[in-house]
Amino acid sequence: MTQQFQLHPRLAADTLALYSLDLCEVRLLNDSRFPWLVLIPRRAGMGEVHQLLEAEQTQLIFESSLVSQALLETARADKINIGALGNLVPQLHWHVVARYKTDACWPGPVWGCGKPVPYGEEDLQTLLTKLRDALQTNLKARL
Amino acid sequence: MTQQFQLHPRLAADTLALYSLDLCEVRLLNDSRFPWLVLIPRRAGMGEVHQLLEAEQTQLIFESSLVSQALLETARADKINIGALGNLVPQLHWHVVARYKTDACWPGPVWGCGKPVPYGEEDLQTLLTKLRDALQTNLKARL
Repeated sequence: MTQQFQLHPRLAADTLALYSLDLCEVRLLNDSRFPWLVLIPRRAGMGEVHQLLEAEQTQLIFESSLVSQALLETARADKINIGALGNLVPQLHWHVVARYKTDACWPGPVWGCGKPVPYGEEDLQTLLTKLRDALQTNLKARL
Repeated sequence: MTQQFQLHPRLAADTLALYSLDLCEVRLLNDSRFPWLVLIPRRAGMGEVHQLLEAEQTQLIFESSLVSQALLETARADKINIGALGNLVPQLHWHVVARYKTDACWPGPVWGCGKPVPYGEEDLQTLLTKLRDALQTNLKARL
């Protein structure tokens, strides 16, 4: 019997639904220090990128780049940081983080750095809308 | 005039040549705490993954997976960590790190964690040979 994909409860708790791409769920981490997206391929039982089929790996990097560009534009960031660690949450997930030379953790990594600072409700809704619009625009430009 | 690829001096100083793949130079960081490889696409002027052509992005993720599998087997690691940060060294480079539940930085990230512990010369040569053999074997298996 094929195992069904279910979002890991820790990811579900820490992030907000943003967009469904062909392979990945795109979710926003609720940390206003740096706009931080997480891509989760909807494939059950995956812990490492190399466990995905080659077509899925290709799709993952394309979706990562789509999200990176949308994030860079929307957040007017200085740098994108990409990471797939999974040392705490075993379900394969892929971080795409907007970094600023002035952010609290620069030039270090965001993982394990300080504590999240949740968005205010209005800022959160504004950011979600802006990011969805940017993803939608960039998706259309690729067709 | 096309800009020519040249390995960034900081990467050249901190890492050792391991293997040349179709797109990337594969180099070993001299840190015995965790076998740590860095892939550098031989493309000039790149700072972000999404700046690569789509065919190059595909090649990058395939090479990353090839290297991940070889590293996982050779180092008998618990987990692979992947990252593309570039906050200090602007040339696009892609980390593939073998992690152990017992390593000095687990479960945190390796970036910014403590100080590198260089390999002894004999251990270094043994590891380089093993990693080259594993890459060679995995490359042949893909043909």
